[in-house]
Amino acid sequence: MNSSHSKIFSSLRKSLPSDEIRLEPALLEKYAGDKWFASRIPDAVALPRSTESVAKLLKFATKNQIPVTPRGAGFGYVGGCVPVQGGIVLSLERMNRIKEIHEDDFVAEVEPGVITQKLQDAVEKKGLFYPPDPASRADCSIGGNIATNAGGPRCLKYGVTRDYVLGLEVVLADGSVVKLGSRTHKNKTGFDFSRLFVGSEGMLGVVTQATLKLIPLPPYRACLAIGFAAMKEAIKTLRTILHTGFLPCALEVADAFTLAAARQRTRSKRLNGCNAHLIVELDGQEASVRREIQILLKVVKSQNPLFIEKGLGPDQCEAIWKIRREFSYSLRDTGLTKLNQDIVVPRGRLEDLFRFTAGLQKKHGFPVACFGHAGDGNIHVNVMVDLDQPDATKRCNAALDELFRQVLDWNGVITGEHGIGLAKKPWWPLATSPAVRELHSRIKRALDPAGILNPGKFV
Amino acid sequence: MNSSHSKIFSSLRKSLPSDEIRLEPALLEKYAGDKWFASRIPDAVALPRSTESVAKLLKFATKNQIPVTPRGAGFGYVGGCVPVQGGIVLSLERMNRIKEIHEDDFVAEVEPGVITQKLQDAVEKKGLFYPPDPASRADCSIGGNIATNAGGPRCLKYGVTRDYVLGLEVVLADGSVVKLGSRTHKNKTGFDFSRLFVGSEGMLGVVTQATLKLIPLPPYRACLAIGFAAMKEAIKTLRTILHTGFLPCALEVADAFTLAAARQRTRSKRLNGCNAHLIVELDGQEASVRREIQILLKVVKSQNPLFIEKGLGPDQCEAIWKIRREFSYSLRDTGLTKLNQDIVVPRGRLEDLFRFTAGLQKKHGFPVACFGHAGDGNIHVNVMVDLDQPDATKRCNAALDELFRQVLDWNGVITGEHGIGLAKKPWWPLATSPAVRELHSRIKRALDPAGILNPGKFV
Repeated sequence: MNSSHSKIFSSLRKSLPSDEIRLEPALLEKYAGDKWFASRIPDAVALPRSTESVAKLLKFATKNQIPVTPRGAGFGYVGGCVPVQGGIVLSLERMNRIKEIHEDDFVAEVEPGVITQKLQDAVEKKGLFYPPDPASRADCSIGGNIATNAGGPRCLKYGVTRDYVLGLEVVLADGSVVKLGSRTHKNKTGFDFSRLFVGSEGMLGVVTQATLKLIPLPPYRACLAIGFAAMKEAIKTLRTILHTGFLPCALEVADAFTLAAARQRTRSKRLNGCNAHLIVELDGQEASVRREIQILLKVVKSQNPLFIEKGLGPDQCEAIWKIRREFSYSLRDTGLTKLNQDIVVPRGRLEDLFRFTAGLQKKHGFPVACFGHAGDGNIHVNVMVDLDQPDATKRCNAALDELFRQVLDWNGVITGEHGIGLAKKPWWPLATSPAVRELHSRIKRALDPAGILNPGKFV
Repeated sequence: MNSSHSKIFSSLRKSLPSDEIRLEPALLEKYAGDKWFASRIPDAVALPRSTESVAKLLKFATKNQIPVTPRGAGFGYVGGCVPVQGGIVLSLERMNRIKEIHEDDFVAEVEPGVITQKLQDAVEKKGLFYPPDPASRADCSIGGNIATNAGGPRCLKYGVTRDYVLGLEVVLADGSVVKLGSRTHKNKTGFDFSRLFVGSEGMLGVVTQATLKLIPLPPYRACLAIGFAAMKEAIKTLRTILHTGFLPCALEVADAFTLAAARQRTRSKRLNGCNAHLIVELDGQEASVRREIQILLKVVKSQNPLFIEKGLGPDQCEAIWKIRREFSYSLRDTGLTKLNQDIVVPRGRLEDLFRFTAGLQKKHGFPVACFGHAGDGNIHVNVMVDLDQPDATKRCNAALDELFRQVLDWNGVITGEHGIGLAKKPWWPLATSPAVRELHSRIKRALDPAGILNPGKFV
């Protein structure tokens, strides 16, 4: 940090409560990045306790042209909160109060730093339900979920973070505070701005409070885990389930490479010969779910699976989901770096996708492990790389490039729930038309004319 | 129309296919308004057949500063498509093709002029489901539904129009064409623009094609219709249903005035003494729905209703919904003009709302009939006015003003599914903060700097 910077920050510190602007090198280092590999140490870290502090900070930053990179819990996968142009990292971690859970309004008022799982546990105690369930929900925050419009397995039935954001308090780049949306489950007052800020990756404003929609907690759940000799059969089963009028709360798939790694780790004999794996979860009233899982069992049996495991109630379901989580650990066990790409294809292209990734594997010499939210067409394609190998990054990017081009060619998208961030930035021009990029610039200029919010990313 | 106008329009006509710009007075008259009472005859009506024509038209209009008011099927309730500043009414009625229904992708590609019910019938034949069900769905169009983010009874469980819009083709004011969103059920590529245009009431761009999400068609449905001596009991029942873990696909209420009018019309003896009425609908797998409706029946019985009627399967359900529709006709039978206000209160305020509207009735001397989507807190408050009475409009506005102030005071909103349009424009400043209005202006200027799109409305 040069001396002009240090003057600037000491003036900022005076206008905020003590210890909300931090400059200690050891602390700055902790705010350099997220779960992706890129990082940059910021010049300062802001740890505000109030909307007022955030407003003062942004007004100051706009006036002095200082980059501000907002940050949730730092559990993103795409380097979205890496402060690539230095300046201030604005962490919302101290604004972490659940301010209200209203049982009759079916609404929660929360600050952005609330950990997702904590909110879910709190509302479930009252018989309410906040469905979005990103894999990192024990660590990630509602603010980060809003910035990336986070999803998860249950989003097939229940929708993504956006679908639960009724209202937001947002501080704009110039420090003005706007309260958007409402506390009601329906609202048609003006433009739908609260949902424009959802998924805007910290580039349009800083969320300081959110009004979230809650729904009645389904009292019961049940699962099936199903093994198949071939992916084709798994996809056919998925199609049959949906065309029998079921919209399961989750419909997850895993491919042969993932299962091979899982066999290695778990020594499960049952996974022998198993090249595709589905998890189907239903929820609702207990009697209905018990009956429906029997109907599903029949539907699935007719597709010649290798095995079916049934889980009734939360404990047995959790046991089945544990296998799904083991898939991730198994991939880690390979010692390779897992580059997780959250592409989405139109659901009818799932079989093509798995055929394509198998080909990619052969052609580029990397293992490619696919699993994820098959019901949505949202598959995590994990390119497994030994980063110590010569040219690994270059070769890996070539494989990703081929993957993304094919996915876009199928009318798919390069990200379903992680966002663009830095990881997907090289493919942003491929994924969007010039007219769409111009539209992003227009809106960015309208809301952040000085360009201080999360600069150096895709807009 | 003056001669400079006529020169302008004849130059526009030359650049478009013949008969896409119409100037005949008899035709112009038909495009002066919607279901609300305000109207203004436009200078010209555009009836384009293609995105190309829409693009040419908007480019021309921006260059020549001509107001353009986009229009769906003209079934709005708030005067949203009244061309208050004259110019061109742009009707999308000729762009009415269902271009594709894809059974595996669970996607429909449609032009904006498609009638909502037609799309629903077409997808249901294939075992697919497009849930949003505005009351006018036999007459209104998808484009109009998108412009107003239309809702309906089923939105309690399934969400509103926005939740089914995956992608849009939009012509901006300058004539540029942008393809927003995607064909996938999940997408995190950049800002969520397709959903910003949803509900923007024709002020930010013109939708020329939509990619809609479809879900599996639930194979069965069942209903309960329940009468109560007091609204308090109906609301308590509603609360009990939700807290038993049910999220019904519809939960509709009607109040004492509505029921009195219905008694008058139907001579139903059963409605004697009945001051509140609920309809609850469940859908899903047949065996589950049959079982669940029995559980609901038990829950409801414990609340001391005057009567319960059960409807199993589509025909019996339709018979129950027919009663709901009779409520509307009954109000029409009174000979009074029904001013339908689609306010929303936080769900916990429902009882307060009904108490308040009863008071309003006494104070202002108008009948006030309330019915609607109780599950969402979205109640249609119908102020019944004899417009021939002296000062009727003034007195009516005073009552509405009181209603809207109270609703806002409860953290409710003045419109849940109809939009602001002209009808709610006087209350726009009351319903929004200066910062929110400034945000609307900023975005409007960014997308339509010449201000040609639907001018004279709330932005």
